[in-house]
Order: sequence, then C-alpha cells, then structure tokens
Amino acid sequence: MIRVVIIGLGNIGTHLYNAFSELKNVSIAMVYNRTETALLPLKNSINTTTDISNLPNADIYIIATTDDSISNISSQLVLENKLVVHTSGSVAIAALNDKNRKGSFYPLQTFSKGATVNFKEIPICIEAENNADETLLLQLAESVSNSVHKISSEQRKSIHLAAVFVNNFSNHMYQVGQEICEENKVPFSILSPLIQETVTKLHKLSPYDAQTGPAKRNDIGTMQRHLTQLTNNTHKEIYSVISKSITNTYGKKL
Amino acid sequence: MIRVVIIGLGNIGTHLYNAFSELKNVSIAMVYNRTETALLPLKNSINTTTDISNLPNADIYIIATTDDSISNISSQLVLENKLVVHTSGSVAIAALNDKNRKGSFYPLQTFSKGATVNFKEIPICIEAENNADETLLLQLAESVSNSVHKISSEQRKSIHLAAVFVNNFSNHMYQVGQEICEENKVPFSILSPLIQETVTKLHKLSPYDAQTGPAKRNDIGTMQRHLTQLTNNTHKEIYSVISKSITNTYGKKL
Repeated sequence: MIRVVIIGLGNIGTHLYNAFSELKNVSIAMVYNRTETALLPLKNSINTTTDISNLPNADIYIIATTDDSISNISSQLVLENKLVVHTSGSVAIAALNDKNRKGSFYPLQTFSKGATVNFKEIPICIEAENNADETLLLQLAESVSNSVHKISSEQRKSIHLAAVFVNNFSNHMYQVGQEICEENKVPFSILSPLIQETVTKLHKLSPYDAQTGPAKRNDIGTMQRHLTQLTNNTHKEIYSVISKSITNTYGKKL
Repeated sequence: MIRVVIIGLGNIGTHLYNAFSELKNVSIAMVYNRTETALLPLKNSINTTTDISNLPNADIYIIATTDDSISNISSQLVLENKLVVHTSGSVAIAALNDKNRKGSFYPLQTFSKGATVNFKEIPICIEAENNADETLLLQLAESVSNSVHKISSEQRKSIHLAAVFVNNFSNHMYQVGQEICEENKVPFSILSPLIQETVTKLHKLSPYDAQTGPAKRNDIGTMQRHLTQLTNNTHKEIYSVISKSITNTYGKKL
C-alpha cells in the first residue's frame, strides 16, 4: 500500500485525488488545501486539513500547487527525509526544500474544470534522486497510467515548453479561427472536421510531412491577400510570423 | 444522373474522382489533366484527356487546379453557358470566365497524399449565380457529404483564412513542439494525448474557455523562462507574438 498526501486541491490535485481514490494499492492519508471551501466535498470520505504543519506520516507527499508556490510550500513542511514531489512541468526538483528527498510526478495533460480525462492514457513523467524513490514513483505512476516515463528536470522543462506550443498555442489558433468565422457570420463548427483531421494525420505523418497551405508553397499572392483580409492587427502579426517560420522550414530543406 | 467533368487531377481532383466514382447518381464524363502521367491509372475505367479544348457535354465542369490557374483554365474552355465551378477556398467565383455560368464546390478539408478521408463528414461549401445551378450543386454535394453549406464568395474567403489558422498554423505548432522534443531527446509521441485532448475539449468548451497556460494567466516569470530556454530565434518570435495575443484576449475580457 502506497500512502500519499496531496497538497493543494486545484485542477491537478483534484484529478489526482479522483484517480488515486479508485486504486486498491494507494491510500490517501490526507488532502491539504490552503482554504477550507475546496475541501468541503471531500470531508466525509477522507482526512483533510488547512494546516500545512500538520501532515500525517506517508510514503509520498505530492505538491500540486502553482509553480511559483512550490518552493515556499515545500519549505513549510514540518517533515524530514520524506519523499516530496511536485506536479509541475516547468519547475526543477531542485526548487524543493533540501530537508526532504526530492522528486517529480508530472502528468502531461491539460486539466480543465468541466472536462473529464482518462488517466490511463495520460503520460506521467517521473523523476527522483535515488533508485528506491524512483521505483516507488514508478509504482504509483503505473497504477494510474499506461504511459510512464523517466524524465530529467531539464527534459521535463523542454516537454512543458513543447506543450505550450502544441496545446496553448494551437488552441489560440482555434480562437483566432473562431473570431474570423464570427466576424463573417460563418458557424465555427464548419471547421471541426478539419481541426480533427489535422490531428488524426499525425498518426501517419510527421508534422513536417503533414504541412500544407500557402506558406509551405511560398504562395506570396495568397499570403498577401490573407493579410489584407485580416482586420485585426494582432492576427496579422501572428499570420506573418508563423508564415515566415513555415516558409523558412521548407525553404531550408526542399 | 449528374454528368460531371473533372478538370485537374491533383489532390482534390483525385479525392473528388474517388468519391464520385462510388455514386450511382453521378457519372464522370471525363477527367482532364495537363500531363498524361496522372491520368494513366484511370485510363481503363474512364475517359481522360490532356486537351482542354476537347471536353464532352456535361452538367457540371469542376476546375480542381491551383488557385492561380483557375482564371486562365476557365478562359481556355471551349464551352458556352455551361455550369463551371472551382474548388478553391480563396478564389471568388468572379474569377471564372464570363462565357459560362459560375459556381463553387469547395470541400473544406486538408487533402494530403497518403491520408484517406471520409467524404461524408467533410463540409462542402457551394455557391452559384442562380437557383437552378445552386440546386444542382446542392444535389451533387449532398450525394457525397452530410454537411453542405451555401456560402458566398466573401464568406468562403474568410473560412479559408480561418482554416489557415486552425489547420496550417496549428500543424506548425506541432512542428515546433517536435523540434523542441528532438533537441532534448524526448519522444514527440509523449505529446500525442495532449494534442488530441486539446481538440476533444472543443466538443464541450469554446477555444476561449478551453485556453490554459502561462500567457492566459499572464505568468510573466514562466514566459521569460520559456523565452530563455528557446534556442531558435524564430521559435522565440512565435512564442512572444502568440503569448501577447493570448494575454490581450484575456486581459480585455476578464
């Protein structure tokens, strides 16, 4: 039985709580949150606290708070030589306080309220300072996910950065697409099959081979017409910068 | 029976040929292509030609050539008062030669060689100058697709532009993500569930509500660390421009 304490009941903390609750080999010793409100729905089924200095004995302490607070939270723990991990993609394990053993348990997924996720398919990146801790984290990760990876702090930072492009930035491309549709009284849903197909193609083709469009062809006429058509200056800027990057990508290698 | 002539056997022309071939209410009177090579696999099953001045009688002539060539091709047709349509998202029907009736038959999808598509789910945007032609195009479109839309030339141009963002540009975000992964010896496939989830979320949430990440939170520390981390100047530029646009989007409305 792996005893865990979850520290912070935001998006990731809640998803971890839900996933761990279903496991027979994991017991949630306590859930900490800064404020009482988030803890209320859990109070009947689990030990909760708003006092960070009052955590029970456990095998793994999982800090699932904001990136900026991880260092501070870890130094507030009244614990010694325990395994303390965080769930952040962009913070090195070195940011954790030295009085405990350090590690990371990073589920590589976008967690929003109102959207459910299948944890089994979420890649989990783990890191620890020694083999025993790594083995324990592997065991916990493999209990919830079929895709577990040993990843260094440096690599994790790069994954997190790549995730900003493939998730945050591609979503913003959808946002711009929706704004253009709305402005021209076209339903955004008309683009849904295209959006899905763009992703489905990646099962068979690399992004490099899947690329299409005027920038890839260096079709200057179409790109200039598009820029004239765009009414929003920020959209124009995005169009120019990404088109230039695509043209350079293919200009270099063709 | 709707008799069609397909003019140009590139990506779209080939996909249309394959889709129409399976229909009982559509007969392909001829396929034209500038060069013989592309026509060779069809020669046994269908009439083909490389002579644009030698097209048979038909109900609809579909020009599926590059955007820049549509106007020129349409003026080479030795036809009068026939329904001639093109398949381009970015060209107005006004670009077609005046000696024939004009229209558009625009399948809104990304067509690559090596990727098969289910035509039934592809939105088709049609446009014609009069009701009879519109009815005929509707009939043809509804034979291959469950999602047919009457769309003006202006609207079609805006859809095509929005498609550049949601398809071409989001694919380039995957390309950048892959480059970052490769540089750090991380398998790009680790990002696949995240990429899929970003799209799946759109079934329930608008892009506006689905947005996450440092730019949305205006988390300046993380954004500066990311910019330092990026080694490629073009990637830095993309990161800055899109982050600024995201921050502005949420700064305005929150």
